[in-house]
Amino acid sequence: MTTHPVPDGETSGPPTSSAAGTGTRLDRWLGSYAERTHGMRSSEIRALFAVANRPEVVSLAGGMPFLEGLPLDVLGDLAQRVVASRGLQALQYGSGQGDQTLREQILDVMALEGIDAHPDDVVVTTGSQQALDLVTRIFINPGDVVVAEAPSYVGALGVFRAYQADVVHVPIDADGLIPAALESTLAALARDGRRVKFLYTVPNFHNPAGVSLSVERRPQVLEIARRYGVLVLEDNPYGLLGFSTEPVPALRSLDDEGVLYLGSFSKTFAPGYRVGWVVAPHAVREKLVLASESAILCPSNASQIAISTYLSTCDWRGQIKSYREQYRERRDAMIAALTEHLPEASWNVPDGGFYTWVRLPDGLDAKDMLPRAVTARVAYVPGTAFYFDGSGADHMRLSFCYPTPDRIREGVRRLAGVVAGERELVELFGTTGSGGHADVQQPGPDVT
Amino acid sequence: MTTHPVPDGETSGPPTSSAAGTGTRLDRWLGSYAERTHGMRSSEIRALFAVANRPEVVSLAGGMPFLEGLPLDVLGDLAQRVVASRGLQALQYGSGQGDQTLREQILDVMALEGIDAHPDDVVVTTGSQQALDLVTRIFINPGDVVVAEAPSYVGALGVFRAYQADVVHVPIDADGLIPAALESTLAALARDGRRVKFLYTVPNFHNPAGVSLSVERRPQVLEIARRYGVLVLEDNPYGLLGFSTEPVPALRSLDDEGVLYLGSFSKTFAPGYRVGWVVAPHAVREKLVLASESAILCPSNASQIAISTYLSTCDWRGQIKSYREQYRERRDAMIAALTEHLPEASWNVPDGGFYTWVRLPDGLDAKDMLPRAVTARVAYVPGTAFYFDGSGADHMRLSFCYPTPDRIREGVRRLAGVVAGERELVELFGTTGSGGHADVQQPGPDVT
Repeated sequence: MTTHPVPDGETSGPPTSSAAGTGTRLDRWLGSYAERTHGMRSSEIRALFAVANRPEVVSLAGGMPFLEGLPLDVLGDLAQRVVASRGLQALQYGSGQGDQTLREQILDVMALEGIDAHPDDVVVTTGSQQALDLVTRIFINPGDVVVAEAPSYVGALGVFRAYQADVVHVPIDADGLIPAALESTLAALARDGRRVKFLYTVPNFHNPAGVSLSVERRPQVLEIARRYGVLVLEDNPYGLLGFSTEPVPALRSLDDEGVLYLGSFSKTFAPGYRVGWVVAPHAVREKLVLASESAILCPSNASQIAISTYLSTCDWRGQIKSYREQYRERRDAMIAALTEHLPEASWNVPDGGFYTWVRLPDGLDAKDMLPRAVTARVAYVPGTAFYFDGSGADHMRLSFCYPTPDRIREGVRRLAGVVAGERELVELFGTTGSGGHADVQQPGPDVT
Repeated sequence: MTTHPVPDGETSGPPTSSAAGTGTRLDRWLGSYAERTHGMRSSEIRALFAVANRPEVVSLAGGMPFLEGLPLDVLGDLAQRVVASRGLQALQYGSGQGDQTLREQILDVMALEGIDAHPDDVVVTTGSQQALDLVTRIFINPGDVVVAEAPSYVGALGVFRAYQADVVHVPIDADGLIPAALESTLAALARDGRRVKFLYTVPNFHNPAGVSLSVERRPQVLEIARRYGVLVLEDNPYGLLGFSTEPVPALRSLDDEGVLYLGSFSKTFAPGYRVGWVVAPHAVREKLVLASESAILCPSNASQIAISTYLSTCDWRGQIKSYREQYRERRDAMIAALTEHLPEASWNVPDGGFYTWVRLPDGLDAKDMLPRAVTARVAYVPGTAFYFDGSGADHMRLSFCYPTPDRIREGVRRLAGVVAGERELVELFGTTGSGGHADVQQPGPDVT
């Protein structure tokens, strides 16, 4: 088991040698680790991504939001008021479940996707990554099955691995998770006597695949999950970031007892406060609060009150609109550059979110190719990161969220040069000659 | 197994019904929880502490620092600058290990206790509670043993329980952990073939016992741990808060391969940013970073940069000095009030930190007495919270950190009235008639 969360964050600072260490130094405590820890090791491509963080490299790998449009002066004044006038609360310990006012405001955000909940149903977490960790912690015994889209968010796969779950992927198409495939997968698992604890899904502007679950399929997926007694874990960081359509009803809006919903301010506002949340049925929510208190005591009051003040005094809906326009422009730049420079590949045209999922020409291997891409000063995440079994080498995830449109075009141009070189090798030798994949490794959070 | 972290924080807001829920409502997912989750339930005394948070109750239960001496105007201006001039970094994702500059500054803080480390050895965490969680996560298999002082910090016991560890307590005296008792405990566990993963200790101004490990005993404890191959987990939130003495050398300063050191800004500055840290040998630190990335991706940049700016622009040593004076005055008020009103009890006189550990007169039970104390408008934490097996009912922890000296005196006066009533019952009936303890329960984080 490995636990490479591979978040969609990326360090802004220079990489340190620390996280890329190889662990070859003598470890006096080697015999003391828990079983779950044995698979934890630094990714082989993590060192590569340390290089990829250099300014001369165009990173199409990271999932960092582009923050330069935020009104930093206004937010600075807001931060001043939070501490100067509410400091005795903001700087103190708070409730394990999270600030009551913020939990009420989160209902307003979720109402945009049709969710009707009570503040008591909400648990504030240290980013929605912590919500993933807590949900997995309370439900997963070693060997339990999590069903998830093929491909799936690498940071979620890392958490499932850390709790020694087994992930079984279900195919998707342009309309998201395929209900018939979900049904046959659950039926097969039931026949095999496997214990499926939940279905993990990113229904909107999927990471990494860019697709959304169609409105028609949503009740079908819920009905199948209900029939098999499988909880649905709906992870929705991008739902409000559609480019051409208004938000569609969340799965949670259709089933409040069968769905755990994860939300986040990281993409609709800013990730630096680390504020996300989970909405859960009453009894599950109680367990999540107890688990969170054990993990961190309580989320940061300073962060929560900053976000709460932002929501009550700033035009947060206008900011989301601005993000949608900004990311649409970048998406357009990405798709135009792919069309011009990489016609031999195929990709989807995402209608929201941060990512394009690109299929390489036959015979190319995105993981093997990565060192040559980084040498050519462009980075991406190989598809292997998004499959529990390390398949997916024929795909790569390209992020358009952070670089400027000009940089995106330049990055894809460089990538096209690398792909052309790979194809020449394949034509000459039938292979790129890099060998297979010894094991499944994902990049660390410095990288995606 | 239960997981009541029972932090030393306390909600400042009114209690909500949520955390005190009884779980009697039908839970559709009852059959789906992990084994580790089955013992998670709300504490029976948690509802009591919801009452104890009312303003008319003097709470001697919580571990909230008293923040009214902080220069909130200055800190507000600092927060403004962090966002307005460094917002693109402060509001963005950061490194999983934590901000490089802050890790360097943490070395300056630890130097006060003789620790010589490298910034690469430091992992920044969401409060030191998260460090406890991460260390336990990477080392503990279900059934492994953690050796800890009798009594021990209730939030640590909750984490150990959450990972299904077994805690074996070792007696302490006025000089802290007793080396001979540690040795005989480890010898007995070795004879029984038990796997001891680490010794958990709060060597300075112990929570709840108020004592410190003497300078003479420190190398002895380390030598014994080394001989038995047991890692030492040194939890040190209070080390800089001595009332009459300068800080003594940390265990980590005497052994950099055998000790994991946990530090925190929650008591020396403020808990609301949720910034703590762990210092670990190279290989262990790598595992901790991977585990933390899985748990939360990265700690909050906004919080880290706020703390870093505080350290570089404010007189943080002066603030610690001010805290020491403030808490000494409260300690004096507590001890004077105990001497005047509760001479039939016994207690230690702590030379730092937040807590006095009080032994009740014979026949009294601190847990049974708590509802009557809350009715008399005073709250404390019963000793049972600080023992893995629920013993300790003859003790209670009184916190002097948060209430004003006048409120402390009033609280102890009320408590004396309750104790007098209990003693009358014991004299009349030989018991207070409340019955035994059905199980081990600790208060939730709203309360201590």
